[in-house]
Amino acid sequence: MSKDGKLLLLDFWASPFCARVKIALEEKGQKYEQSEENLFGGKSELLLKSNPIHKKVPVIFHNGKPILESSIIVEYIDETWPSPPLLPSCPYEKAQAKFWADYIDKKVFEVGGNIWRNTSGEVQEEAVKEFIEILKQLEEALGDKDFFGGKAFGYVDILAIPLTSWFLAFEKFGGFKVEDHVPKFSAWIKRCLQRETVSKVYPDPEKVYEFVGNFRKMNGIE
Amino acid sequence: MSKDGKLLLLDFWASPFCARVKIALEEKGQKYEQSEENLFGGKSELLLKSNPIHKKVPVIFHNGKPILESSIIVEYIDETWPSPPLLPSCPYEKAQAKFWADYIDKKVFEVGGNIWRNTSGEVQEEAVKEFIEILKQLEEALGDKDFFGGKAFGYVDILAIPLTSWFLAFEKFGGFKVEDHVPKFSAWIKRCLQRETVSKVYPDPEKVYEFVGNFRKMNGIE
Repeated sequence: MSKDGKLLLLDFWASPFCARVKIALEEKGQKYEQSEENLFGGKSELLLKSNPIHKKVPVIFHNGKPILESSIIVEYIDETWPSPPLLPSCPYEKAQAKFWADYIDKKVFEVGGNIWRNTSGEVQEEAVKEFIEILKQLEEALGDKDFFGGKAFGYVDILAIPLTSWFLAFEKFGGFKVEDHVPKFSAWIKRCLQRETVSKVYPDPEKVYEFVGNFRKMNGIE
Repeated sequence: MSKDGKLLLLDFWASPFCARVKIALEEKGQKYEQSEENLFGGKSELLLKSNPIHKKVPVIFHNGKPILESSIIVEYIDETWPSPPLLPSCPYEKAQAKFWADYIDKKVFEVGGNIWRNTSGEVQEEAVKEFIEILKQLEEALGDKDFFGGKAFGYVDILAIPLTSWFLAFEKFGGFKVEDHVPKFSAWIKRCLQRETVSKVYPDPEKVYEFVGNFRKMNGIE
């Protein structure tokens, strides 16, 4: 498939998974078109047809062919436009990056959701505790490095950083402050946000908080 | 890291996730040592130390370094010993293979577990229905091809086939027959089992059924 074909992203502004794809494309200097989905008012025919199984954004079309699942799309982008590299070339280091990517995918957004989706104080308290433990694990994996892979911003950073745009909502609904528990991880967030490729597409945490609040109201969670 | 170093697998006979690693190593003609874990009588120090987050098999040590998570391990094996290839080299085809691998990982074993872990007839019936729908999706993805990737046995086949060693248990506890619903998928199972690399390490379905039955008794599910 030609590298030079048209790129179209089925997007949603608050989706951290869409932001992953946008950051990866920005890092590679690739231009793309966006089509904003209305996830509540009815999904587009194109989304339903291209992702019939999950019916979820992001979907990216490259030369008209759909690619699905944000972590898979980021890897596709990395393989199609190799410079600058996002994943390490060494199989062992790559396996380590994939391990953390998988951990982030299984844990962060799901446990974060348990914070804002619940009204029961006890369940929420448990979720906040679990969420902080997850961040501590990530802080340990980060260690004293600038980024998860070392000196260079890469794959794990790209998968993780957009999720942090939802942290303000988690904090406000859960009554805690991320920074109080994981100072090094918080410094990593700030470091990532200094990159234009990130800040340009990072969902506004205040707007995400408002969005989550409206979603709670719509679903009778108050 | 040298390709030629020692390989040690922390294994468990009934684990389809361990079988994935064994099939991949057999396909590549790589010799490995196995250390059987006693998952009920206490996990080994080596397992707890090498996989402190999930504390799960399989773990494979290559030259003493641990690699975790079965789908990541299979990819590591494919990159370290490229012949015969398991994943397609074309980024688009690779992304498609990864999509199905992800679908299988999220759905098959979890929904299968809802069949044998439940005593409520209604929940179980729902799980059986969902399980058959998942297999129909996979059958559609397989189409008229011999294997998921086409003519050659590869990555998606390696991730999927070991899970089918648990199907007899799902069928007996759920009161259904996989073959009645997905004849082409069932033919694919038989086709895979004709490969020595698979049959050699495939958990015995009768023993798995017995194992699941004992597990149910131990946990008061009857």
